[in-house]
Amino acid sequence: MRCLKLLIAYDGTAYCGWQRQLRDPTIQGVVEDCLGAMTQETVTVHGAGRTDAGVHAYGMVASFITHSSINCQSFLKGLNSLLPSDIRIRMVEDVAIEFHARFSCTGKRYCYQFSCRPILLPTERLYWAHFPGVFTESVARHCLDLLVGEHDFSSFEAAGSRDLNRVGGRGAVRTIYKVELEKTSNLDLYSITIAGDGFLRHMVRNIAGTVIETAQAKRTLAEFTEILAAKDRSVAGLTAPAKGLFLKEVFY
Amino acid sequence: MRCLKLLIAYDGTAYCGWQRQLRDPTIQGVVEDCLGAMTQETVTVHGAGRTDAGVHAYGMVASFITHSSINCQSFLKGLNSLLPSDIRIRMVEDVAIEFHARFSCTGKRYCYQFSCRPILLPTERLYWAHFPGVFTESVARHCLDLLVGEHDFSSFEAAGSRDLNRVGGRGAVRTIYKVELEKTSNLDLYSITIAGDGFLRHMVRNIAGTVIETAQAKRTLAEFTEILAAKDRSVAGLTAPAKGLFLKEVFY
Repeated sequence: MRCLKLLIAYDGTAYCGWQRQLRDPTIQGVVEDCLGAMTQETVTVHGAGRTDAGVHAYGMVASFITHSSINCQSFLKGLNSLLPSDIRIRMVEDVAIEFHARFSCTGKRYCYQFSCRPILLPTERLYWAHFPGVFTESVARHCLDLLVGEHDFSSFEAAGSRDLNRVGGRGAVRTIYKVELEKTSNLDLYSITIAGDGFLRHMVRNIAGTVIETAQAKRTLAEFTEILAAKDRSVAGLTAPAKGLFLKEVFY
Repeated sequence: MRCLKLLIAYDGTAYCGWQRQLRDPTIQGVVEDCLGAMTQETVTVHGAGRTDAGVHAYGMVASFITHSSINCQSFLKGLNSLLPSDIRIRMVEDVAIEFHARFSCTGKRYCYQFSCRPILLPTERLYWAHFPGVFTESVARHCLDLLVGEHDFSSFEAAGSRDLNRVGGRGAVRTIYKVELEKTSNLDLYSITIAGDGFLRHMVRNIAGTVIETAQAKRTLAEFTEILAAKDRSVAGLTAPAKGLFLKEVFY
């Protein structure tokens, strides 16, 4: 019996999220089906997290137990030949049998991509959210700096999701290690990178939406500070669209 | 009566090229339909060139004659609200009535994007061609340098297309102003940029395919030199896939 770890990239556009569903296409479902075809076993793949419908990944990690003796390189090639081109396995490796992509995970890094230009280009439309308007970088940086460290992120949790993400009794308290705002040279495309020890449901998209609203002068910096302090979802800003969000890396 | 100039970006994935066809979806067809809906006229849009099925554009230029009094900003907004998101109008401007996007054109700049890594990522799959393998940049640069200046590019013309591109009696002689090979930092994605006074059918894709084959040691530099000198399509390398090609700019 072996435990294998997969590093997966996907374009979430055509999927109803990571988690297997009865009818709708999901990343987990497609990967499990391909693994089943290769191993002739019923394989359950555990992802490091459950990305929502439309969210992309560059570095999702998943693990599964198998009796198969297929080597890692053959798994890599075989899976990529079976999978549709919007899902790619970047790496397959043998790991300790105790490894579990979700329970062993110590943190994640997400990136939220958006454009503030008047027109969203065709080649950007699938991977960048569109927030046309003046965007004041210094304001965004100020907001983002406030998030670093340990906070109760209730204000940025998805409405109605209480208890869903409360593994280990830590409530809505999470630690953000690092936050970065980057601007792509000469194209006015921005990305917000957030690394932390865990994320509540919709947390990155709610943070991105609220930070962008503030940097576009739709709310004040004082309001942003109050939102974080309020620990109350009902006061926060909009949930930014799924298509701008990428799961970039999972830490172990 | 006015002549209007459009600057158009599109993702060619879903289209059978620029040129209007009876049944299949084309960029020209969709743009003309939207202009017809706005102006209540039967509008003929002249493009600077006819991109093939699957080819993308960042800076296609097109022109049309209209009796409409709609101002340019309203044309821009109206068209972008009517067009699907894989076609965007970047600019609309009034130009001299004699202007014609094709006949007034003095040159074009194309970019060919490709990845040489083992795995083509989901987010790259629509806009980068995949040529996995070792790619020697110095060899590619050497090939590209040979193309600069005035040459008979018959060897890089689409098979069977003789006479199609022979406007103005210049045969297959074209002048390449500038060629550049760029590498995207840390991702091993490459792009070849070629600017010139005109391009034969499939010329950029045939050049890209042959240069990449040479830089991947599938043919020698001496062979590349011979191909250019041969002025004979039958000796050249493969036509690189449409999805890597972008019309970046049209010169007037």
